[in-house]
Amino acid sequence: MAEPLRIALAGLGTVGTGVLRLLEANGATLAKRAGRPIKVVAVSARERARDRGVDLSAYDWVDDMAMLATRDDVDVVVELVGGSDGPALTLARSALAQEKHFVTANKAMVAVHGMELGKLAEAHDAAFKFEAAVAGGIPVVKGLREGAAANRIERISGILNGTCNFILSEMERSGADFGEVLSQAQAKGFAEADPGFDIEGVDAAHKLAILAAIGFGARIDFDAVAISGITEVGAADIARAATLGFVIRLVGVADCDTQGSGAPRLLQRVRPCLVPKDHPLAHVTGPTNAVVVEGNFSGRLLFQGAGAGDGPTASAVVADLVDIARGDTGLPFSVPVADLEPLEAADPGHRVGRDYLRFTVADRPGVLAEITAAMRDADLSIESLIQQGRSADGGEVLVAMVTHEGPERCVTRALELLEGSPSLTAPPLVLPILRD
Amino acid sequence: MAEPLRIALAGLGTVGTGVLRLLEANGATLAKRAGRPIKVVAVSARERARDRGVDLSAYDWVDDMAMLATRDDVDVVVELVGGSDGPALTLARSALAQEKHFVTANKAMVAVHGMELGKLAEAHDAAFKFEAAVAGGIPVVKGLREGAAANRIERISGILNGTCNFILSEMERSGADFGEVLSQAQAKGFAEADPGFDIEGVDAAHKLAILAAIGFGARIDFDAVAISGITEVGAADIARAATLGFVIRLVGVADCDTQGSGAPRLLQRVRPCLVPKDHPLAHVTGPTNAVVVEGNFSGRLLFQGAGAGDGPTASAVVADLVDIARGDTGLPFSVPVADLEPLEAADPGHRVGRDYLRFTVADRPGVLAEITAAMRDADLSIESLIQQGRSADGGEVLVAMVTHEGPERCVTRALELLEGSPSLTAPPLVLPILRD
Repeated sequence: MAEPLRIALAGLGTVGTGVLRLLEANGATLAKRAGRPIKVVAVSARERARDRGVDLSAYDWVDDMAMLATRDDVDVVVELVGGSDGPALTLARSALAQEKHFVTANKAMVAVHGMELGKLAEAHDAAFKFEAAVAGGIPVVKGLREGAAANRIERISGILNGTCNFILSEMERSGADFGEVLSQAQAKGFAEADPGFDIEGVDAAHKLAILAAIGFGARIDFDAVAISGITEVGAADIARAATLGFVIRLVGVADCDTQGSGAPRLLQRVRPCLVPKDHPLAHVTGPTNAVVVEGNFSGRLLFQGAGAGDGPTASAVVADLVDIARGDTGLPFSVPVADLEPLEAADPGHRVGRDYLRFTVADRPGVLAEITAAMRDADLSIESLIQQGRSADGGEVLVAMVTHEGPERCVTRALELLEGSPSLTAPPLVLPILRD
Repeated sequence: MAEPLRIALAGLGTVGTGVLRLLEANGATLAKRAGRPIKVVAVSARERARDRGVDLSAYDWVDDMAMLATRDDVDVVVELVGGSDGPALTLARSALAQEKHFVTANKAMVAVHGMELGKLAEAHDAAFKFEAAVAGGIPVVKGLREGAAANRIERISGILNGTCNFILSEMERSGADFGEVLSQAQAKGFAEADPGFDIEGVDAAHKLAILAAIGFGARIDFDAVAISGITEVGAADIARAATLGFVIRLVGVADCDTQGSGAPRLLQRVRPCLVPKDHPLAHVTGPTNAVVVEGNFSGRLLFQGAGAGDGPTASAVVADLVDIARGDTGLPFSVPVADLEPLEAADPGHRVGRDYLRFTVADRPGVLAEITAAMRDADLSIESLIQQGRSADGGEVLVAMVTHEGPERCVTRALELLEGSPSLTAPPLVLPILRD
């Protein structure tokens, strides 16, 4: 059998120790499949003493993580530290510059510095792989880069954050409100103590920006992702959506079109959406992730699985290592970084679609007339409307409606017309309806 | 840009012309992604004159398909002729022996002759690729061979035949019986005029045998696949399954265990199954295919999409070509064919699971007592039982039941005890319940 592929591992949190456990448990099979053993030679993490439940005695311990990149006995540096900058970025730059292959689960770093690191990898003929950065154990980076490679990609839609999906599907199941379910999710380990990056949609946006770059052959443009989180979605919205035939999910959507005017433009958005009950993403519950890739010949491809967790993420990290061991060290973004298009961001106002609008209004005569007049004046046509019950104390009621298909600027216009109206007792909520 | 990858294409049916259309439509993007143009130089099919709606004037026409393999100006031979033997097999052997890469959508040939062709490819350092042979446009061969490569695979379960899935989900939707829906499927082009290979489960078994070999590192053993088709499933079974919380789907399942006795044994079965409504395969309707791969670290991965059709199948064929153009010409079965295990077939009698049993019985006293006594004597415990209504004319009634978890041999035993009983007016139907 050929020489082992020699690994240096930075970061020994749950994913890092998961990788060690996986290589231990499946080592013999992996060596057969990869054609050579995959062998960790050195590890580094902040605290040496911590009990991680794995035996580290077979590996060199390195205090200064940056030193992993300079070792002659290392072929691949695996970074599982996290953070878009700081030690992770230093290690990435140093490893690639020293012609080490580099594997990471760090979505924030890839989303923010992926172009620089991709160029560095190309210049030094090193692999730069990040399957674990998107959707945990699901091989969707490979699915898009290779499996769907024959297609012009028309759209990518994904449930990319397990915490949000757990919360939304649990709100749906139990009827409980956001805050209550968030606390449960934290207790169960499905949400961080500081859940901001997840529930505000930033984590999903990192992943979407990476997928969009590969799918559309575009430079990563994380700053152009329009992001709304799930904190404004109420139990009442989920109940009304259900009545109308939808579930609510946080979905990242990227597509690319010319908007009838020359150059293609890229639209990237992460928002809570109403998903029709017969759409593949409607059945995704709990902390699961799923990505739908629409190709002009393949049609709709669905990739689904665990979006996080030590086992699934380790599975994706080691899949990258097997690829490298087999000699697949090709271009990280499918085409050379220099050939990725710097696509301009699309104007969402041109988009044609349906929306769910929810107004919190004072319970008195004339309010519905005011809202519907604003919609008429904005050329926004109503497909269905629910005003269920009324408040016990003559206070607030909810009016929920679904629009007919129309340009998004009409929704914006209607909300402008209603701005400052004393009839609205809270800001309206607009959720797009995912195309069927 | 590098030299083009030069293709010879055998077979110009819907998939063959789909490949030509795809290469024409997406050519520029493909050349960027593959790092070189993909160029068809020669084509061959039975009838030259037929109008296929594509312009063939740019390609050399070759009357004798076998000649494609001998051309010096060809790097890859693509076989889209079909049939496990005959001209397809002759072409495959000849192309690989002449160190041409070989790409095929021919599941029957891969299932029957895959080991021979794999060895030939290895000996001649040629790629042998067949993504399009399994589940149409879904990149599940790659998903298993590469995406899930880090895992010990525990089970593969797939909806692998679009015709059967269309028929079963249409029976479910409409309440119509098998024969009626088959006719509709034929009219819509979802079923062949001679649907035997599909509805009897042979086509799904070809695909399962290929996936099992890759997933379990086993020699392909198509003959060991236990196959039942969908012709015995009635509208009444679908209705009763729905009442009990299940849908019925034709599912191919492969798993591997030691049955507590030394060497691992491979179980491969294609059968109509009761799928719990919250299982990912329960939501797969119409001619869609889906495969669930369970890995010991990844957990459950779902790959879903169009299982047939010219566009999706062409997408898979060309994905293989892009891989080859990028230099990925690695081992077809993930490990060398010589290292694939010749696994013995498992004895299904040892399997522990739940089953759905449906008896067609005479409508007279004592019948239910006879059946339940046989089940008691076979140590088979009943979880739920439905005997709905009774026939108008005092003739036949259906008794449907779901067993508690137990060894399959108990079911066999119970049926043996009831064999020849005058109470049963038709052979009983046994459908396994897919594990949740």
